[in-house]
Amino acid sequence: MRRRDLLKTLGMAAVGAAGSMAVPARAGQRLEWRMVTAWNRDMDVFWPGLSRFCRRVAQLTDNTLQITPLPAGDLAGPLEVFQAVAEGRAEMGHSTAYYWAEEIPAAQWFSSVPFGMDKNCLNSWLYDGQGLRLWEKAYEPYGVIPLPMGDTGGQMFGWFRKPLETVEDLKGRKLRFPGLAGRVLQRVGADVSLMPAQELSEAFASGALDGVNWIGPHHDMQLGLAQSPVWYYGPGWQEPSGRLETLVNRTAMDKLTVSQQAALRAAAAETDLWMQARFDTLNALSLSSLRQLPEVWVQVLPDSFLNRMWMISQEVVNELAATCPLCRSISEDYSRVWRHCETWSLFSGPEM
Amino acid sequence: MRRRDLLKTLGMAAVGAAGSMAVPARAGQRLEWRMVTAWNRDMDVFWPGLSRFCRRVAQLTDNTLQITPLPAGDLAGPLEVFQAVAEGRAEMGHSTAYYWAEEIPAAQWFSSVPFGMDKNCLNSWLYDGQGLRLWEKAYEPYGVIPLPMGDTGGQMFGWFRKPLETVEDLKGRKLRFPGLAGRVLQRVGADVSLMPAQELSEAFASGALDGVNWIGPHHDMQLGLAQSPVWYYGPGWQEPSGRLETLVNRTAMDKLTVSQQAALRAAAAETDLWMQARFDTLNALSLSSLRQLPEVWVQVLPDSFLNRMWMISQEVVNELAATCPLCRSISEDYSRVWRHCETWSLFSGPEM
Repeated sequence: MRRRDLLKTLGMAAVGAAGSMAVPARAGQRLEWRMVTAWNRDMDVFWPGLSRFCRRVAQLTDNTLQITPLPAGDLAGPLEVFQAVAEGRAEMGHSTAYYWAEEIPAAQWFSSVPFGMDKNCLNSWLYDGQGLRLWEKAYEPYGVIPLPMGDTGGQMFGWFRKPLETVEDLKGRKLRFPGLAGRVLQRVGADVSLMPAQELSEAFASGALDGVNWIGPHHDMQLGLAQSPVWYYGPGWQEPSGRLETLVNRTAMDKLTVSQQAALRAAAAETDLWMQARFDTLNALSLSSLRQLPEVWVQVLPDSFLNRMWMISQEVVNELAATCPLCRSISEDYSRVWRHCETWSLFSGPEM
Repeated sequence: MRRRDLLKTLGMAAVGAAGSMAVPARAGQRLEWRMVTAWNRDMDVFWPGLSRFCRRVAQLTDNTLQITPLPAGDLAGPLEVFQAVAEGRAEMGHSTAYYWAEEIPAAQWFSSVPFGMDKNCLNSWLYDGQGLRLWEKAYEPYGVIPLPMGDTGGQMFGWFRKPLETVEDLKGRKLRFPGLAGRVLQRVGADVSLMPAQELSEAFASGALDGVNWIGPHHDMQLGLAQSPVWYYGPGWQEPSGRLETLVNRTAMDKLTVSQQAALRAAAAETDLWMQARFDTLNALSLSSLRQLPEVWVQVLPDSFLNRMWMISQEVVNELAATCPLCRSISEDYSRVWRHCETWSLFSGPEM
């Protein structure tokens, strides 16, 4: 998505939102919506989650609002979801916010930041703090309404062909890492690229990549990354949570009845909870399987390694916060909530 | 609730459920339901959560299903919620399952067990595993359908007038602890009672109690337990989560349309997520405030202390599992999910 496309979108959506008087649908009027997504039909958790959501909305609205999810590429590419919803080519979308972080830097916090909140604290911020309001503010100029829906939960750091002892071991290594994590790793001398998922397994097997990050145990196994011999490191400091988002075109939303709007919000929250639970289930089971494979060494990164990553992550996130006034407000509010929530986790956690 | 009352209820509800042909409500038929609860109107998180739930159900159903929450004592006492719903005196209720654990031992797992699952793992079990189905099975003989709704999250162990170093320090102490935790503490020689919340603060101040457990930092402060000098210990090994439940009379549920039933389920899940988030927010903020009070020492229990509590808790939970065949099935399924989920938490957690 290029900046001028988004700016064009911005103008269009803003006029659309301001110019159209909201006309509530007559009760019983049947609407058929399309939901563009960043996912393929065979992607576990993501696709079943969307199907659950659409089914629930249909039930809740006595079938007056029927939503059809479309896989990536059908109406919009995986990185065009936001734009397609902003332009009204689709009424809805499902994706994750950091895909638009280059154009909308504020979006990054609503997906994940290195050493940021886990999904519990993020839930507090989004559902009970200012989080969702700030997210709405970030997307408002584009005529897009965000709803949290799904979270990968804590991830793993990634797969490596050789063991990692110090941060220096990353120097010159060819790694596949997205976004801010990639920026952090570049600062310690890694050679970072963002290869599409479909090519990862082969590139890793052939040695074209020395290290790979994808999502977590379940999706990583499905992608064929559990090759041997291999070292699999946790925790996923680069994404301690990975919130997913449902996007709604504001003009389309304004045409819904109160109960149809409530159906979207309630079903999104219900699906958010289910997808969080589902990721935990599958990752837990897959990690147990992985640990039984010969020559797959599941390990925890050394403290000294994590400390260096933490320091550089602070720099990277602070630079991001300086890129726009809204980014600064978001970063401050996020950090405040995180500080309190982290302390509470330390005292209340049964692992203590 | 006495056994014979419940057995009476059992007969009645079973006949009610089997004998009445489910007659779906006509669309537009307006229903007014009552929800008995175990809470007072001034109880933070609990009451606002119920209000949100009822408002959402009204929105989702175009006001065809309106639910009024009733505080404890209005139609049923706090410990009579289950019975009132089973008998159909109220269509719904909100409470927590371990209140009925003496009559329905299986109920304990759906509320909390010592050293059991945190709320994330419990979400996996309930929403994505067999948890909710087992819960439904436990309540089925009574004609009651459970829906998870709210969780206190991890708690604190409690407030003590003198510091705790070893488990021996509990001997002869007068403690207020509920349920299984109380049983564990009795085995190390504590003098355990279950005083009502309203009397706790005064009893603790006067020295009638040496140690008190209530919920967590927020509700504990509201109750006036942050007296000084005092030691406040975490983690709350006795309740690593505390799930709350919405109860629905099955005969009443059967009379709802598909969309009204969906509204109850979606709104309960949405409220579950919100209440979990809200507890985390308020506990995090209150813990930060507490730690700034003079002569309030917030501390973590020593490992040796936790290890002893863990060993005794295993005994107590195993004894509970032996009380009924369903209890054993539940305990096995719960433990299996917990084992996988705990390992995953250890690897994925950003605290590592």
